[in-house]
Amino acid sequence: MSDIVRVALLGGGTVGSQVARLLTDSAADLQERVGAPLELVAVAVRDTNKPRAGIPSEVLTDDPFAVVSRDDIDIVVEVMGGLEPTRELLETALSNGASVISANKALLSEYGAGLHEIAHKNGVDLFYEAAVAGAIPLLRPLRESLAGDRVNKVLGIVNGTTNYILTKMGEGQDYAEVLAEAQRLGYAEADPTADVEGHDSAAKAAILATLAFHSSVTLGDVYCQGISSVTLRDVQAAADLGYVIKLLAVAERTPDGEGIVTRVHPALVPKAHPLASVHDAFNAVFVEAESAGQMMFYGRGAGGEPTASAVLGDLVTAARNRRAGAAGQAQSVYAGLTPRPIGEATTRYLVSLDVADQPGVLAQIATAFGQHGVSIQTVRQDTDEQGGATLLIGTHAAQEAHLAATVEELHDLDSVNEVVSVMRVEGAE
Amino acid sequence: MSDIVRVALLGGGTVGSQVARLLTDSAADLQERVGAPLELVAVAVRDTNKPRAGIPSEVLTDDPFAVVSRDDIDIVVEVMGGLEPTRELLETALSNGASVISANKALLSEYGAGLHEIAHKNGVDLFYEAAVAGAIPLLRPLRESLAGDRVNKVLGIVNGTTNYILTKMGEGQDYAEVLAEAQRLGYAEADPTADVEGHDSAAKAAILATLAFHSSVTLGDVYCQGISSVTLRDVQAAADLGYVIKLLAVAERTPDGEGIVTRVHPALVPKAHPLASVHDAFNAVFVEAESAGQMMFYGRGAGGEPTASAVLGDLVTAARNRRAGAAGQAQSVYAGLTPRPIGEATTRYLVSLDVADQPGVLAQIATAFGQHGVSIQTVRQDTDEQGGATLLIGTHAAQEAHLAATVEELHDLDSVNEVVSVMRVEGAE
Repeated sequence: MSDIVRVALLGGGTVGSQVARLLTDSAADLQERVGAPLELVAVAVRDTNKPRAGIPSEVLTDDPFAVVSRDDIDIVVEVMGGLEPTRELLETALSNGASVISANKALLSEYGAGLHEIAHKNGVDLFYEAAVAGAIPLLRPLRESLAGDRVNKVLGIVNGTTNYILTKMGEGQDYAEVLAEAQRLGYAEADPTADVEGHDSAAKAAILATLAFHSSVTLGDVYCQGISSVTLRDVQAAADLGYVIKLLAVAERTPDGEGIVTRVHPALVPKAHPLASVHDAFNAVFVEAESAGQMMFYGRGAGGEPTASAVLGDLVTAARNRRAGAAGQAQSVYAGLTPRPIGEATTRYLVSLDVADQPGVLAQIATAFGQHGVSIQTVRQDTDEQGGATLLIGTHAAQEAHLAATVEELHDLDSVNEVVSVMRVEGAE
Repeated sequence: MSDIVRVALLGGGTVGSQVARLLTDSAADLQERVGAPLELVAVAVRDTNKPRAGIPSEVLTDDPFAVVSRDDIDIVVEVMGGLEPTRELLETALSNGASVISANKALLSEYGAGLHEIAHKNGVDLFYEAAVAGAIPLLRPLRESLAGDRVNKVLGIVNGTTNYILTKMGEGQDYAEVLAEAQRLGYAEADPTADVEGHDSAAKAAILATLAFHSSVTLGDVYCQGISSVTLRDVQAAADLGYVIKLLAVAERTPDGEGIVTRVHPALVPKAHPLASVHDAFNAVFVEAESAGQMMFYGRGAGGEPTASAVLGDLVTAARNRRAGAAGQAQSVYAGLTPRPIGEATTRYLVSLDVADQPGVLAQIATAFGQHGVSIQTVRQDTDEQGGATLLIGTHAAQEAHLAATVEELHDLDSVNEVVSVMRVEGAE
């Protein structure tokens, strides 16, 4: 093996430029940590004529297929994004014996299992710490530090844009107003769909679930509901009850121990819970493991520099592994838990009902809950001057399907004027 | 190489029993994750006649030297504690070609560098995730995930006993009272010195500093001040000013970039800082890195189960590395930053003075600060009915030596009746 570790970049945008800059600026440190110099030998971009700070023009090329087909590349760093032709490029790179570092959550949540298989077959590494929660070391601890433990639940805020929006709504601003501001500031894309509808969080949830439970979970297995229908009134009502609303990514074993429900949706989080204090564009992930107990990982979830830091960390490990001849350890999905639908999720709920203010109403409603096996923990009734009343019912942990059936029945009750809202509650005792 | 990974335990106490239990209970999972079965072949204890739950009596021995001298052991797990003969045992194990997992912070903070050298020379691993912050994955992220970044500061609560005591004092209880209660509950030892005087935190600080800065820092390099002189009045005065008092372990580059100051002492932390919400026996470590920004790792710092979880995580990695032939990567201290004395620390301070309430006093005091190059950020003066006054001075970041010289001079000023307290402030902007 050559004494130089040869690195190629696919993509020369924000993250790519930062990676290239750090490879140069930290060259001496990286060489010490790897035990050999890292050399940037190719950067595939769309337009080779565009000047790119920190990237020498002689390594630029507009032919990514030529790059991944070379047999002298040790590590390919993919920061170009997209599904195709990215998948084909990475498959080719792995098949040609290069280790791959990627930050592409969409690709990995869809094709991760297949890529891992090709990597293992060719004795090379596939790492993607930057794909989830930016620079926060999270995937490696799940994969390695907790390898002797049993994870029961992963619960996190993994999208900075929506957390920024919800934080500002908590300060009294309206959804549309904050979204427009976030777009002005560059925190939200011109088309914010992937963030606000939860798709970005769902891709990350699939990756987290796969690693935490040693089982295959892809994007299509994730229940997904975004924040576009969360109103300022919802946020304020939650605050009055001691909660904040967060867009959570949750992956959890089913009670039978053989399935995983993975879901993304807004949820009520008690103000005293550590996740409630995660503000603005920060990310945080809670992990509950059998022996280790509860842990939280907190930091910046996005941005060129944090993402580049995560890529460089992977790069050092991949380079060391190549030199030690230790690349290509399998990413096992041996546990084989099966993805289950949202109906099998178990959580607590807060149901707000507009009801007639008359005797017997509570009994009728409590019966509906009881018949579906949903146990009530708290009830609060507020009457208004028009002879109506608002009933707020907090449940114990219940199965989503049972709760849905209860709500179905509540709609049909004469005494219920309206089911105002149904919110999931996470992080409460 | 045999297809079985043979494991020996030194120590059969709380953590040892948990490790033995998990090796049995999670045998199938561990085998999948390692790719081979793990077999517990020897457990060295003091008294082989004492029955130990989960440990088969035929593997018990009271001769640890015989265990580490065997040439068929793949991994030695040390949970016996102590400096000698533990050091000699681990050196023998490493020299005989076994990888070593340890939870022994005292040993590692003193002899870590030498043990790493022997491990590297013999192509075996030395891991000790459990030595700092229990099950929280922290050492591995510092060593690997941030390997492409530059850490500037590590700031943490790494001792659960003192954090429990300070939390209860924040609720109004007296130091002596809480300590007695903690001893009753088993949170504090009969001799609490190692915890309350900061020695335990200092050992962990040395380990963290060594890994974060790729430089050798040992226990003797760490400035250490405990919490035994913190009074309920201090805690309440801090609360009035918007702070909590935490026992912090801090490791930080000196401004010239070539030194590290490592220190353990009580410090004021603003209530809004994430470390302020770390209650009871929980641990949390803040890391500030150049590119990644601020990160926090939070979880249970102690206890048999969390510690065993961390040991098992290391065990899986060490076992995989042996099978892949990749053990023995060097723990480099290439950066060679030199440990510096506390006088070179840079932080903010809050100085409380009992002064004469007369014109010109503030000018005189401000002059004393200015002459030593300490810049004042805030001043608050409260007068009492006896014609005295309390002056509370908050500084900008200043060098400890300059602050100490300032305080020396304040003692000599006629207008200063008493220097009531000098507290370091961490985590403020």
